[in-house]
This record gives sequence, C-alpha cells and structure tokens, in this order.
Amino acid sequence: MIKAYAAFGPGEALKPFEYDPGVLRASDVEIAVEHCGICHSDLSMLSNSWGITQYPLVPGHEVVGRIVDRGEFVRHLKLGQRVGLGWHSGYCMTCSTCLSGDHNLCADAEPTIVGRHGGFADKVRADAASVVALPDTIAAQSAGPLFCGGITVFNVLLQHNIPSTARVAVIGIGGLGHMALQILKVWGCHVTAFTSSETKKADALKLGADETLNSQQLDASTSVARQFDLILSTVNVGLDWNAYIATLRPKGRLHFVGATLDPLDINVFPLILNQCSVSGSPVGSPASIHTMLDFVARHNIEPVVESYRFDQVNEALARLESGKAHYRVVLSR
Amino acid sequence: MIKAYAAFGPGEALKPFEYDPGVLRASDVEIAVEHCGICHSDLSMLSNSWGITQYPLVPGHEVVGRIVDRGEFVRHLKLGQRVGLGWHSGYCMTCSTCLSGDHNLCADAEPTIVGRHGGFADKVRADAASVVALPDTIAAQSAGPLFCGGITVFNVLLQHNIPSTARVAVIGIGGLGHMALQILKVWGCHVTAFTSSETKKADALKLGADETLNSQQLDASTSVARQFDLILSTVNVGLDWNAYIATLRPKGRLHFVGATLDPLDINVFPLILNQCSVSGSPVGSPASIHTMLDFVARHNIEPVVESYRFDQVNEALARLESGKAHYRVVLSR
Repeated sequence: MIKAYAAFGPGEALKPFEYDPGVLRASDVEIAVEHCGICHSDLSMLSNSWGITQYPLVPGHEVVGRIVDRGEFVRHLKLGQRVGLGWHSGYCMTCSTCLSGDHNLCADAEPTIVGRHGGFADKVRADAASVVALPDTIAAQSAGPLFCGGITVFNVLLQHNIPSTARVAVIGIGGLGHMALQILKVWGCHVTAFTSSETKKADALKLGADETLNSQQLDASTSVARQFDLILSTVNVGLDWNAYIATLRPKGRLHFVGATLDPLDINVFPLILNQCSVSGSPVGSPASIHTMLDFVARHNIEPVVESYRFDQVNEALARLESGKAHYRVVLSR
Repeated sequence: MIKAYAAFGPGEALKPFEYDPGVLRASDVEIAVEHCGICHSDLSMLSNSWGITQYPLVPGHEVVGRIVDRGEFVRHLKLGQRVGLGWHSGYCMTCSTCLSGDHNLCADAEPTIVGRHGGFADKVRADAASVVALPDTIAAQSAGPLFCGGITVFNVLLQHNIPSTARVAVIGIGGLGHMALQILKVWGCHVTAFTSSETKKADALKLGADETLNSQQLDASTSVARQFDLILSTVNVGLDWNAYIATLRPKGRLHFVGATLDPLDINVFPLILNQCSVSGSPVGSPASIHTMLDFVARHNIEPVVESYRFDQVNEALARLESGKAHYRVVLSR
C-alpha cells in the first residue's frame, strides 16, 4: 500500500489516504519520495479550476526521491538512484512528437496528477522514460521545483534559441519567475524584472535581475519601447498585454508560461509592423530536463524554498495560496 | 514636373495632378513608371483608414519601371535598368535593424505613399537602397504586385525558416493569398487553402493548393486538429482565431500579414499546451526582395493580374474594392 495525502472534493483539506498501486508495470519505476515541491497547478487541480480533477486527488508533481523498484524493461535507472519526476509521468513514445524528442507535446502524455496519484505520498510510480536522474551535485531538498517550474522557464530558452545577447524581461517574481531570473543571469542575458512590490524588487536584483521596472507604471513609461527580445510572463492574471508588446524590439516575443483564463485581446497591427510573436509553452521533455539539470548544477542555481513536513501539507498549501512564499514551498520527510 | 493621379480628400476620385519633385538627392533614383499594382493599402490610405494620410495623395507602391536619373552616390543601379519599388522608398541605413539587414523593420523607414508621392504617375523617386533590379526573365507587366503583396508572403517563409516538409494553410485567396499558394507549392509544402467560395476553390487548386477547406465549417470539422505547421492569414477581417489555432500542430504558428483592426481575442491555454505562436510581419527587406525575385524567376511564378490603363485609375480602384478582381489589379501605360 502507498501512504498518501488526498483531497476528496473541491476545496477540501487533504487527509491521509492509502491506495494499492497494483503490480508494477514492466516500463515503470517506483520512487520513494523524499521531497515534493508544491506548484500552482496543484492548487488549480485541488479546486478543480480546470474541470479535469478526479477525486480522491493525491497532488504533487515536483518529486525528488530514490528508485525502490523497477519493471523488467527499465535499464537506464538503478535501484537506489536519486531521481526527479515532474508534470508528466509517461508518454506514448511512438507519436511523431515523442519520436522527435518533444515528449512534452505528446497528445497522449500522462500528467502525474490527472487520473492518477502524485507525489504527496511515501511512494509514487511513473513510466521510467519520464523520470530523470538527479546529479549528486544538486541539493535534493530544493531540487523538486526544477522538475516543473524550473523546466517550464528553462525550456523557453531552449525552444526559442534565446541568445546570450538577448534582453529579457520577466513578469511575475514568484515560483517560476525567481528561477527564470537566476537562469537568465548565467545565460548571459540582460535581465529585467517587472514587479510592483518593493520587497520583490530587492529580491529580484539579488536573484540576477540587472534592473526592475514597475509594471503598474508601464503605460506611462515610453522609455522602454522597442527594448526587449523576450518577455516571459509567469503570472496567471490578465495584464495590459498590448502595453508589454510595445516594449518588444523588432522580432521580439511575448511568451506565456503562466496560464491566464482571460483571452489575450491582442492588437495585430503592432505584431505585423514589428514582426513580433506571442507564444506559449508547457513543461519540457525528459531530454530538456536532463540538459537543465546539467546547466543548473554547473552554475550552482538553486530554487529558493520554504520547507514543510509532509504531515504539514495543508499548512504548506495555505502558505503557497497566500502568495507570500519565497519562492517555492517544498514538502520534506 | 511629374504627372500623377492624386486624391484630394478621403473617398474622393483621383484627378490628374502635377508636382515638382525638386533637385534629385544624391542617394535617390528617378524611375519612369511602366506598371503599378494596386494594393489594399492604397485603398486604406485613400480612405484614411489608418489616420496617417496626407492629401493630395498619389497612391501606388508596386512600381515597375526604368531608371531615368540617379544621384551621384548611386552605384548599384544604372540608367535604363528595369527595377521595382515597393512599400518602402528609403531606410535610415544606420540603426541596428538596418545594419542587420532588416531594413523593413527600421523605425524610420519611409513608406512610399505616406507623406510623399507614389507610383500612380509617370515618374517616381526613391532612395536607391529601396529599389531592386528586376531580372529580365520576369514579365514586367505582372511583376509590380511582387514588390508589396508578393514579398509580404514570401518573407514569412524566409523569416520563420519554413521547411519544405511543412503543412501550410492560407486564409484568404486574394491578392496576397494567390501568390502565397504559388510560392508554397514550389517551396515543397503541403498547401491547404481556406475559402468559402466555390469559384476560388477551383482557382486555389489550379494555383497550387493540394486541398481546400471550407472556412465556414471550421468549427464543426474536428478532422483538421493538429494538422498545420503554419497558417498564413492574408485577410483583414476578424475570424474565429481560436478555431484556427486548434488546427495547428505542436510548435505551429498562426501568422498575420493581413491587418485586422479587431483585437485577436486569443486563448492562452492552447498556445501553452501545444507550444504555438501567433505572429505577424510586414513587407520584406531589399535583400529578401532580391531573394524572392530570384526564386520566382526560377520557378516561373507570376501574379495573376487584371490590367487597366493609368487613365482608368478610378475604374481600376473600384474593381479592386469590389473584391472581384482575379487577383491583383495593375495599371500599365
């Protein structure tokens, strides 16, 4: 039996919950969970904001732990090896996106906490292809957030071949944004943090921003016109996107990794005149996670986390929901 | 004196108009106009839809003619040489976009018919950097539309490195769309034309489309989900863009070269899940025009035009405005 924490309905507190995972599939591994980050997607799933939640729901998709069992087809991971598991726990492996290395875009990819149980538990299972070895040089306690939030921002730089010479702005200095600032700094970019909070302004500069801009004064500020090659939005609220697009350089890109449910309401003329793009992307593929881990290990990048014990899970969720966490909340044994 | 046709107010018919162009600038050439295509931008400028028109307005920015005078700094064009002139008649030449070869994105680029007089005339002047030699193997009579409409669609393939293996859909089978179909066909792509007209359906197949889809039945059609790498919209009306985005493959792009004034109203979640982009672009640079002319000459691509004499200019404008032209209207001597 796997001992987990589950919600039994929208908005309900998590309670201890046991389930029998059955016989281990030949391509699966079982991970003994040591740490598990909490992502805003966990909150969205708990409240069923996306209408796809199945209860009981065991959240948790920023897992770090050790392999304790593996199916007969698994070769690349060993018993006792420390690994990470993110938003996806399996892929079809044979569609053209999977065969092209874009497993994260597979239409049949299996999300770790949709219709199956996640990492708020002593153990979790996943198809071994979705599980990535964690280098020894990365601190396990804070590594969980790399596997969802971290890869989501890192993958943008890979997918769009962002050069080190780019000027990049980040909207939202939270779980994703604080990792983006650190990564962009060592990537070599000029980094601007959009924030309206004085506290976050100081933090942003420490994390790697070259400058901060007050997002609430964007309209009045004409000095930033035609300045950014990339604006990375990590927030899940609607903003005046046309004002941000006006700050893009020719061929610039406004890219969304935060999912607002409001339509974007974008004027097409500025996109045409300046050859700009508006785009989005989800988490990354296993190959891109591997590349990210190599990169953050080399540059000593570490998510800034607040730690809670697994039995404090409801307190930890409330802390994330308050918006006051600096900057990611992680459950640890 | 230059003998032209000009409008003296919004919606007014064009009348004969003479103006003194003054002393030829050292970097300019004077072109004796042989042919001039009519673009929808000419109609927008005539009605002052964009609020930037200065009257008297001499429209015309799809010029083909011969060099009859050149300033002392001009070396790359000779007297008597046949050339083309498009939307831009000059660039600053020293900003980072110009110096990077992206003259078409120069913030100080000079549009041929904004604040200066265009090609509905016996002669027109332009900075020589914006004037491109027309190869002898391209028919002069139908070449004008290449210099605005043609380059606008061709440039998209250059800018986004569209591979020959791509599946591309074109929305709007008109002045731009009918050239896009021809270019995409010989580019090697699978080509789909979105149209709701039976006449245009047959034409689209002749011009190079592999298939046509009824744009009015897009919502009901689930069979085209995740199918296109690129959708090129050449129309200037609002459509159900989210329905089109649903037809994009992972990493697909909905690209606008037609300028609708309605905001795009795009849902961000599908962009994120499928790593899609929404983008736009204007005309191309002189270098890309040169590349296009080489390409269309090699593949015998020719705009399909209806010809009028210059003194029939008001009739020609009305024909374009009717939406019935197949597919571009050109004034010829």
